[in-house]
Amino acid sequence: MTKQLIECVPNFSEGRITEVIEEIVEPFRQRKGCALFDYRADKDHNRLVVSLVGEPEAVQEVLLESAKIAISHIDLNHHMGAHPRIGAVDVIPFVPLQNITMEACVELAHTFGRRYYQETGVPVYFYEEAALKPERRRLEVIRKGQYEALKKEVMNPERHPDVGEPQLHPSAGATIIGARKFLIAFNVNLGSDDLNVAKEIAKSVRSSSGGSSHVKCIGLALEERRLIQVSTNILDYEKNALYRVLELIRTEAKKWGVPVKGTEIYGMIPAAALLDSISYYMQTEGFDPNQVIELRLLQMLRDNEA
Amino acid sequence: MTKQLIECVPNFSEGRITEVIEEIVEPFRQRKGCALFDYRADKDHNRLVVSLVGEPEAVQEVLLESAKIAISHIDLNHHMGAHPRIGAVDVIPFVPLQNITMEACVELAHTFGRRYYQETGVPVYFYEEAALKPERRRLEVIRKGQYEALKKEVMNPERHPDVGEPQLHPSAGATIIGARKFLIAFNVNLGSDDLNVAKEIAKSVRSSSGGSSHVKCIGLALEERRLIQVSTNILDYEKNALYRVLELIRTEAKKWGVPVKGTEIYGMIPAAALLDSISYYMQTEGFDPNQVIELRLLQMLRDNEA
Repeated sequence: MTKQLIECVPNFSEGRITEVIEEIVEPFRQRKGCALFDYRADKDHNRLVVSLVGEPEAVQEVLLESAKIAISHIDLNHHMGAHPRIGAVDVIPFVPLQNITMEACVELAHTFGRRYYQETGVPVYFYEEAALKPERRRLEVIRKGQYEALKKEVMNPERHPDVGEPQLHPSAGATIIGARKFLIAFNVNLGSDDLNVAKEIAKSVRSSSGGSSHVKCIGLALEERRLIQVSTNILDYEKNALYRVLELIRTEAKKWGVPVKGTEIYGMIPAAALLDSISYYMQTEGFDPNQVIELRLLQMLRDNEA
Repeated sequence: MTKQLIECVPNFSEGRITEVIEEIVEPFRQRKGCALFDYRADKDHNRLVVSLVGEPEAVQEVLLESAKIAISHIDLNHHMGAHPRIGAVDVIPFVPLQNITMEACVELAHTFGRRYYQETGVPVYFYEEAALKPERRRLEVIRKGQYEALKKEVMNPERHPDVGEPQLHPSAGATIIGARKFLIAFNVNLGSDDLNVAKEIAKSVRSSSGGSSHVKCIGLALEERRLIQVSTNILDYEKNALYRVLELIRTEAKKWGVPVKGTEIYGMIPAAALLDSISYYMQTEGFDPNQVIELRLLQMLRDNEA
């Protein structure tokens, strides 16, 4: 029987102070039953994104350890960054990866969320597949107005947390916990310093304003690099090919005479998403992921393990 | 200790008769210690290319079994196809894949080559890293004039086989055995029926006439599909990125006003070669293969195995 594996991608509101970042990440290293696949901090976003893969039990333990460290260090009242957030530990999604269903990940999110509040005192909102109210499937609904607005509005019944009293943690805000499909974070950096251009392009790309379904998109300024960024989350890469999102942004950028300077794949990505795009750009006919030697070796080792 | 793994890519001169193809491939199926990763037959090439991965001992046994079947069915005196060949079993390269050196694969090619002649009576030429004469590193030198010319010229000392008497097997010709790096077979199909155009483009791409180093390239007519094909072998994909070969062919094709209709990755390909090209087309900055979830899972399983 192949092991159950989930991916968990906790987002922390600290992207600048190396010592704090390392302290938050430390519990994810070298633990039995889970592996730190990726972590990256962005100064402009002032945010740390971690990719953790492992067995459900082990992942929950290290998450709690790490969250407590983040909560002890991060004060949302003094936090500035380009990326929207409501908490020191802003988002914790569970993603089914191997031999586990989405339903089991929803269950996991709920159990973990209740324990998380008990142990940290930080209230919890459930989102995506784990949402208890339909409108809360969407992260941006929960995060509306960010920490600063939510601090006041949390007492309104429609903004009450799903777990915990109707008030935010005084320094760590609230945490959004859920279950979802594998998400691709994909950013396109453009050669301009006009934030308005990034915002206009983002508007034409994202689903909420008529763009691609399953694509979230915001325009940001990368002040350190003097660039603007169209930052996307592709919620369903099987329906929204990576190349299509990029080419759509390229097309819109042309309207403003702004060049694509480069792109960033932020965190982990499934091979299938890349193969799909390579097939587009290279016009491959009949290309099968089974032709990739490492994917076949993985299959061989899994078969041996089973 | 991680297992020793090699890839072996035997090429057989039969791409049309399904029953014969299946009979040749049968010994590669479901054998302990080796796995059939890929096989594809091409009617125009009249050629079958197999990718076999496994432990060196197991691979040799199934190769001999399969070669004997091919030799019993294929008569070079009645063989026609677009792809150059000198034998029923035309080429057998061994490729180091995991925990084995190139030197060990050269040794393997030599041992296997001698046993192959003893058991089949088909003379052997050694090529690439296993070549005993420097000019025989190059496949096309050994294969010059193909079966039809070699049948007569084999008695000339400079064309004597490396193993066996100076005469070809009456129906199965000769077999070229060697060791080499992972090779990518990459074909570009062009919307024209002018074979001369394919040949001219091939000339400008291949190393032997001033094109890219480590790239072999021929122009072929795909009569069934009424297309022409620029068929390449990329002998060192780390030095000759796939995208660069494709874009070079695209550039040359423009000169003739001929469109790229599609491309084919023939057989297996290492993930690194694809990632390299996706980074080019998508302008990714700082993308690391470790971000691909399956590559990390493979690493995890290998670590567990070790």
